[in-house]
Amino acid sequence: MPDIQNALAAADRALDQGLDRLFEFLRIPSISADPAYEADCRRAADWAAAALRDIGFDASPRKTIGHPMVVGHRRSGRAGAPHVLFYGHYDVQPPDPLELWTSPPFEPQRVAGPNGDVIVARGASDDKGQVMTFIEACRALIETQGGLPVDVTVLLEGEEESSSKSLVPFLTENREELKADFGLICDTDMFDAQTPAVTTMLRGIVYEEVSIRAAAMDLHSGMYGGAAQNPIRVLARILAGLHDEQGRITLAGFYDGVEELPPAVKREWEALGFDGAAFLGAVGLKVPAGEAGRSVMEQITVRPTCDVNGIVGGYTGDGAKTVIPAVASAKVSFRLVGSQDPVAVQAAFRRFVTERLPADCEATFLSHGNSPAIVVPSDSEPLRKARAALAEEWGRTAPVIGAGGSIPVVGELQRILGIDSLLIGFALEDDRIHSPNEKYDVRSFHKGVRSWIRILDALGR
Amino acid sequence: MPDIQNALAAADRALDQGLDRLFEFLRIPSISADPAYEADCRRAADWAAAALRDIGFDASPRKTIGHPMVVGHRRSGRAGAPHVLFYGHYDVQPPDPLELWTSPPFEPQRVAGPNGDVIVARGASDDKGQVMTFIEACRALIETQGGLPVDVTVLLEGEEESSSKSLVPFLTENREELKADFGLICDTDMFDAQTPAVTTMLRGIVYEEVSIRAAAMDLHSGMYGGAAQNPIRVLARILAGLHDEQGRITLAGFYDGVEELPPAVKREWEALGFDGAAFLGAVGLKVPAGEAGRSVMEQITVRPTCDVNGIVGGYTGDGAKTVIPAVASAKVSFRLVGSQDPVAVQAAFRRFVTERLPADCEATFLSHGNSPAIVVPSDSEPLRKARAALAEEWGRTAPVIGAGGSIPVVGELQRILGIDSLLIGFALEDDRIHSPNEKYDVRSFHKGVRSWIRILDALGR
Repeated sequence: MPDIQNALAAADRALDQGLDRLFEFLRIPSISADPAYEADCRRAADWAAAALRDIGFDASPRKTIGHPMVVGHRRSGRAGAPHVLFYGHYDVQPPDPLELWTSPPFEPQRVAGPNGDVIVARGASDDKGQVMTFIEACRALIETQGGLPVDVTVLLEGEEESSSKSLVPFLTENREELKADFGLICDTDMFDAQTPAVTTMLRGIVYEEVSIRAAAMDLHSGMYGGAAQNPIRVLARILAGLHDEQGRITLAGFYDGVEELPPAVKREWEALGFDGAAFLGAVGLKVPAGEAGRSVMEQITVRPTCDVNGIVGGYTGDGAKTVIPAVASAKVSFRLVGSQDPVAVQAAFRRFVTERLPADCEATFLSHGNSPAIVVPSDSEPLRKARAALAEEWGRTAPVIGAGGSIPVVGELQRILGIDSLLIGFALEDDRIHSPNEKYDVRSFHKGVRSWIRILDALGR
Repeated sequence: MPDIQNALAAADRALDQGLDRLFEFLRIPSISADPAYEADCRRAADWAAAALRDIGFDASPRKTIGHPMVVGHRRSGRAGAPHVLFYGHYDVQPPDPLELWTSPPFEPQRVAGPNGDVIVARGASDDKGQVMTFIEACRALIETQGGLPVDVTVLLEGEEESSSKSLVPFLTENREELKADFGLICDTDMFDAQTPAVTTMLRGIVYEEVSIRAAAMDLHSGMYGGAAQNPIRVLARILAGLHDEQGRITLAGFYDGVEELPPAVKREWEALGFDGAAFLGAVGLKVPAGEAGRSVMEQITVRPTCDVNGIVGGYTGDGAKTVIPAVASAKVSFRLVGSQDPVAVQAAFRRFVTERLPADCEATFLSHGNSPAIVVPSDSEPLRKARAALAEEWGRTAPVIGAGGSIPVVGELQRILGIDSLLIGFALEDDRIHSPNEKYDVRSFHKGVRSWIRILDALGR
């Protein structure tokens, strides 16, 4: 079994070339949501397939019902070596509003930042920069060791930022080809700039739109005010009842399937000393508004939540209008954890609303999402190996953490391919993903490459 | 003192000619809110002044900072006769949406309706038809009696449907010329199609816009959900607290100055048998939503109310967006009665909100109106005479009633000229004022003219 020091040294030497390759990738405006960029999405897929072929992968873009998928294989040639499926995406968010960028979003720049140089471009962090940490790691291993320590299949999606409409059909149709022992997904954050992490918990979501209707038409509040039911008042009262004084959600059975963190994880988290005050302070807040007695880190990752994401009713223009509207509506979402059942939560919410409707009111509902939380084992052998490899590279323990939002592909890999994934990424909270001036630290990129070298090596042992 | 039967008979004979004159008036599109109709507003003022001169008034349109006022005088020549100031307005609401009219809004039609013929045109009821009941009554009295039983000053406004911006300066500058013993205002409804009424209570209004801000920017609910304060949730909770379980408003001191109906009025109202169920049923409602233990008639006229007229926050477009907004806002209005102090109500509302703000939230307020209720004496001598005259014409008692909305001129006449008003009108709830196919019953017009003949005669005795 060769020493990996040569591979790490090769990665260090190749840093500038690796950045050049990443910049080429970033120059392609592969905006999947906008049909005007369809050819650019194809070009990005071609570019990624060529980059994989360049390091000896059998790789090609594949037709789908939407933008192409890129699939590449390279066997290790070692009997009994595990087979990993690496997932990333080559598409990016639209760059609007353009006027807020300090440089054009598809002309990547390396600029000095307060914590070292950063790469500024749309996709620098989400997800082209992260994808390239893995490909450059493979390159360094192949160059110095003549091959990879594990069998690798790479799957790059081109619709992660839009609909992911091709994902399920593509995984289903190519189940045999994509079979592997487990997934590696590079689309998540570190714990903080100094501390790598493996994400094992992803919150699910139930997203409901509710409209409450009272009178048959808008009414004049001078004429009807006092006697006519006001749906805004009804809606406000219902929404106000969704949380109790302790910040807990009051839906019947809502906490079924919500489990406490394993004590070992909890201890690890306490030792990390996550700075909840700084996290909130960065957006102008001071006091955690969630469940009493829970740390900010718990509140945003492993506790379920309820937020009103939008509300509208009556007159909302300038000035005054004395209207009692016929209808008022709200968009309400629940973040789910553990084994909370989205169907049960949806039903409990709808029941909660309808049970509280006064006379003359009726509610209609629209579902905008219903997906369970995803939890991957936090004590598997690959996970232990990956954590040890990360700890070696970064000089500190890599905790298992939860993420507040969902990454649907993790669930689809479980469901369709029957495999769990390790979610390891080097993005930072301040990367401004989906916003103007998205960036990726050069350090994230460089140490990300080195981390994957160590992880792949560890997984092959 | 001449018998009024001749005047009434003259009014009956002149009905068709009176309608012809009204139709001329209605053909002038005096839309005060739209600068494109400025010349038409001038034309309507000229027309009304000419109509008054035609029956011997010393009348002319007067320049103001906006559309002209029309002022006309005709003395009775009787020593000691009371002096009345009649107020109405010649401007009308815009007719949009035009496509919902069954005939062009400024081409008045006399058509058969389920309860007799109606006049269909913009302004038929509000307020040209009502104004013409008074002018035609004067005409019949003058023709048959050679003069009027009381001194009459007529004041017609041209901005009631837009800003009324000239009203206060004009009343102030012409205080001496407009002096009278009391006002007569013809811009209100009957109690129902069979029952005339005198309106003595008009609710005031406090209209507030409140915005609640939490984080410095919109946040992603996947990343911050659970820890970040959500201003929609805060706003909903505050709005939900404005009413108690009995439908009473919970602001401190809110009911100060709210008085019970005088027992005599209450008895009168009970005898009227106002059909609250039919009133609500017409707009698709069944159950009064206001203060428990109050009749619909009380709820909509003599009880104070609170309504949320508009609310907005977060994402309100189609589909879903997982945002925790930085700000949410609502427009909240209070209808005031009796001697409730609008300044105190406004202050109590603002205190109510700010006292309930959790950490990290701040509220800003914008005032869109602050006017007290107006109550005119319900037992003055002119009022008794007018009620008796109405009862004679319609064959049933004319109750004193309250109106849910405000008519600011009543307060300005009190404040600037120092006079109370009798509010007597012949409009009906189904007149569709401010809406397509506005109408005025021919019966309202005809019996309105006859009513004013009787009232003027009674006031002169």
